[in-house]
Amino acid sequence: MTSEVDKQEFREAMSRLGAAVNIITTAGEAGQTGFSATAVCSVTDSPAMLLICLNHSASVYDTVITNGKICVNTLGAHQTDLAMRFGGKTPAAERFEGGAWRMSDLGVPVLEDAPVSLECEIDSWQDVGTHRVLFCKVRHINLSASVSGLAYFGRKFIELHSA
Amino acid sequence: MTSEVDKQEFREAMSRLGAAVNIITTAGEAGQTGFSATAVCSVTDSPAMLLICLNHSASVYDTVITNGKICVNTLGAHQTDLAMRFGGKTPAAERFEGGAWRMSDLGVPVLEDAPVSLECEIDSWQDVGTHRVLFCKVRHINLSASVSGLAYFGRKFIELHSA
Repeated sequence: MTSEVDKQEFREAMSRLGAAVNIITTAGEAGQTGFSATAVCSVTDSPAMLLICLNHSASVYDTVITNGKICVNTLGAHQTDLAMRFGGKTPAAERFEGGAWRMSDLGVPVLEDAPVSLECEIDSWQDVGTHRVLFCKVRHINLSASVSGLAYFGRKFIELHSA
Repeated sequence: MTSEVDKQEFREAMSRLGAAVNIITTAGEAGQTGFSATAVCSVTDSPAMLLICLNHSASVYDTVITNGKICVNTLGAHQTDLAMRFGGKTPAAERFEGGAWRMSDLGVPVLEDAPVSLECEIDSWQDVGTHRVLFCKVRHINLSASVSGLAYFGRKFIELHSA
């Protein structure tokens, strides 16, 4: 049982683990950028903390680490276009031309109509293989009237409606 | 921006972050148990690793840590009953009376018709507030013919169908 699990097999397995699609943004001395991500997870509620997993080789890596603050914007059912825009090859500056964005007091880009956006400061981290797991303290929460969601499952976007 | 985010506000926010529902099982010298969990996240694919967040005060905590191995069983669209059974007050032994379980070569309970089950050994961890984040090496993957999923969003179970 010590053999390595094949990378493709693991990716197939992970495609069956549904996850919410978010746009994670950052701004600060290293500039502004954002990217689509599903590797977000609640950790504790006292204090409020979440984690995100970031590949060391991601184009946004240095910007996120240097700025030290992020905003996790969940996406609503009808925001597949935004998920694609922030997940593709679109240059960082052009990504923000999609959607209505504002800069928060903490200095991170907040998506106005995200079901929820969580403004965070990076508190600590642990490097695990190719990724850095960032533990983030939630500093401010913005709840909108929209309560739908967008998940990624079976390599497809799926709308979430709780009503 | 240094004030703490209110616990209830954070929980409301997290209810809008959809997540797959899994049953995490363990067996070994400390006994066999299992629990429903959404705090599971892919970390790296080389080597294949995932993380789970476990509350220090969880009834299953000591059993999981002592055994040092777990199985993450994702749930299909029609397995809400199992999610409830492993998420409630049912005694550990009775929980396994629901569903068809087998013991794997690694020695963890595998749900026969889970869309995917990932048998893991705990590799390392980091304590973050009330929780221990467990980084787990995936040792074996079982893929079933079923490719539906079950998510928890807006405090409700939602079926995921990729077709």
